[in-house]
Amino acid sequence: MPQLITLTTDFGISSSYVAQMKGVILSGVPHANIIDISHAIAPQQIRAGAIVLRDVYKHFPADTIHIAVVDPGVGTDRPLIYAQMHGQHFLAPDNGLLSLVARETTVTRIFTLTNRALWQPQVSHTFHGRDVLAPVAAQLAQGIDPQLLGPSQSGMVMLDWPEPVILPGRIVGQVVEIDGFGNLITNISLASLATAIGEHSQRLEVELGGHVVVGLSRTYGDNPPETLAALVGSSGYLEVAEVNGHAARRLKVVLDDPVVVHWPAATLDD
Amino acid sequence: MPQLITLTTDFGISSSYVAQMKGVILSGVPHANIIDISHAIAPQQIRAGAIVLRDVYKHFPADTIHIAVVDPGVGTDRPLIYAQMHGQHFLAPDNGLLSLVARETTVTRIFTLTNRALWQPQVSHTFHGRDVLAPVAAQLAQGIDPQLLGPSQSGMVMLDWPEPVILPGRIVGQVVEIDGFGNLITNISLASLATAIGEHSQRLEVELGGHVVVGLSRTYGDNPPETLAALVGSSGYLEVAEVNGHAARRLKVVLDDPVVVHWPAATLDD
Amino acid sequence: MPQLITLTTDFGISSSYVAQMKGVILSGVPHANIIDISHAIAPQQIRAGAIVLRDVYKHFPADTIHIAVVDPGVGTDRPLIYAQMHGQHFLAPDNGLLSLVARETTVTRIFTLTNRALWQPQVSHTFHGRDVLAPVAAQLAQGIDPQLLGPSQSGMVMLDWPEPVILPGRIVGQVVEIDGFGNLITNISLASLATAIGEHSQRLEVELGGHVVVGLSRTYGDNPPETLAALVGSSGYLEVAEVNGHAARRLKVVLDDPVVVHWPAATLDD
Repeated sequence: MPQLITLTTDFGISSSYVAQMKGVILSGVPHANIIDISHAIAPQQIRAGAIVLRDVYKHFPADTIHIAVVDPGVGTDRPLIYAQMHGQHFLAPDNGLLSLVARETTVTRIFTLTNRALWQPQVSHTFHGRDVLAPVAAQLAQGIDPQLLGPSQSGMVMLDWPEPVILPGRIVGQVVEIDGFGNLITNISLASLATAIGEHSQRLEVELGGHVVVGLSRTYGDNPPETLAALVGSSGYLEVAEVNGHAARRLKVVLDDPVVVHWPAATLDD
Repeated sequence: MPQLITLTTDFGISSSYVAQMKGVILSGVPHANIIDISHAIAPQQIRAGAIVLRDVYKHFPADTIHIAVVDPGVGTDRPLIYAQMHGQHFLAPDNGLLSLVARETTVTRIFTLTNRALWQPQVSHTFHGRDVLAPVAAQLAQGIDPQLLGPSQSGMVMLDWPEPVILPGRIVGQVVEIDGFGNLITNISLASLATAIGEHSQRLEVELGGHVVVGLSRTYGDNPPETLAALVGSSGYLEVAEVNGHAARRLKVVLDDPVVVHWPAATLDD
Repeated sequence: MPQLITLTTDFGISSSYVAQMKGVILSGVPHANIIDISHAIAPQQIRAGAIVLRDVYKHFPADTIHIAVVDPGVGTDRPLIYAQMHGQHFLAPDNGLLSLVARETTVTRIFTLTNRALWQPQVSHTFHGRDVLAPVAAQLAQGIDPQLLGPSQSGMVMLDWPEPVILPGRIVGQVVEIDGFGNLITNISLASLATAIGEHSQRLEVELGGHVVVGLSRTYGDNPPETLAALVGSSGYLEVAEVNGHAARRLKVVLDDPVVVHWPAATLDD
């Protein structure tokens, strides 16, 4: 069994914090296959980290160990937790970071990390990723029973996640993620779209940043360069893209901006 | 045999797309050694991705599997291909991304990816890197015969590559890459320089951005700080650098700007 | 024994230089576990690279091979060296890059790299990381005796490191690192702080960028958002942070700016 350990942090690429964590992990399990999920989560933005984890975990094999660190409360009394979900292992502060995964899959059990015998001998007040989560991940990779990490807890802190509002003839959501192409990814899932709209999807209009995009495209390249396209992206959420462009810059849309999907009254005649 | 799989994309570091591909690969081959070549290819810039692949592949061992994704046509009818070149395996959209490697090495065989049995069960219209190329790479790493990927095709889409123009007494090329140091890397190879200039190289002048650099240096540090130096870089192409500086910012030169190499008429007397 | 090889460079993420080095390493040792420490060292900033190495090496296991490349003198007559320190192996130009590690741990032996038989057959003048250090690291990973790398040398180039100045009632240091959170990390260690101040730490004041921060915090979250906090960071040095903010931007402080720690005269009455 390979020891697959992933890292998701807001540490950026300009410091050595990520490498310090890798050193601690490899000191425990030299054969670990460490995979970077992202270190470009915006600093302290728990929701952004939670979205990345939600979009990624389902593609990883069973028994993967995920470490996530977006931790504005490091060193205060917020707990660190272990959660077993979807047959995988997650280590993170209990601040909502794991909650979007928890919302959509089976949570088998959660333990509060309290067993200091498994941590670094000295624990800094400002870097629990290195001094607690990394050595605990190394122990898990070596086969320790998660029950030894600390006492069971019955739930975890859940993010205040903005659900889209479904109204007669319209859905009101918001932009929750902007990717490297400038694509504006919303909180409106394919499922909620299908439920609300049904067969009207061809006449659907998406309004954001003062612009209206008519119709759902199948993919970016079905439209001419520099036009706007609305489509359901690869993680299953409605997004607006500028073909071969950067929709966020063009529309001056930022995170949390509202998105309204509606279908013309005329379709009621169908 | 280790399963060495590399990734070259324009996904950037701020999204989880790369990690999703890694998850799919590792679900198939948990022992894969996944190497990031670059995820900072400028969005949709096929030529930039092709240059990176050209500069990198020759340093990797036989049987390395390279996945490359710069794919403005994702989800349209552009094919995805497997190409065996230089004893290595390449997977990419057939849009020119592999063509600079193909130009300079042996292309053994090319297959069009059509065997959907090897892909993810559900294929999104916008992320074939994750849903087609990643699972196919995992199958190749497990030893599947490439012939099973799909039918043979006889060539691939070739980039419209800007060849330098060799004229009497001068070569006209252009800047095709700017590295992290601001070095301006051209399409003028050492070979074309040697052929055209021969023994005149000491008197050579390089003109770009309204500046003239006299003579070819051996390395950056042979010149005082903040001077401009022309030299043949580590991939075998003429480049202009500012010593301990950033030539691109200083000269306000951008991609595709012309570069003229000439040698003074006086040298004709030699 | 896994072959653990780390990379620390100033190559940035927008070129393929790092990947070229990885290819050379993996051509020699296909099972190598290559770990990126950082490629975001500011170009040619030897001190920044030396600080990263200092903060990282102690977390890695024995026998790790570290390659470090911040090398403004590449291709000139500055030597490349191997240094065995803290039971680990380091390869770098002899320009001070390894000197902050050497200052704080045991240097067992140093060799000058001269044995060209271990290098790439062709060595470029501008990329010794790829053509010298990478193949030498691969040889070390395969168990070659370091004595074969070249002749012993008795010391290495030491950085001109700015020591904090301890005066009666004050310590004068400077900002030597700014991390991805904008935290301002100084050259004032916990040890020098403890020696100089002793029991006065509660009344300590930290002055930089025209602001005064009163008292030492234990961690960021002990203070309200957007306040400034002074604390001893996870690498053991005094730093100033803005809680949930970016101290460097707020205070307009840059590298090398002075930091003064003092304790009010009143404390002399204690």
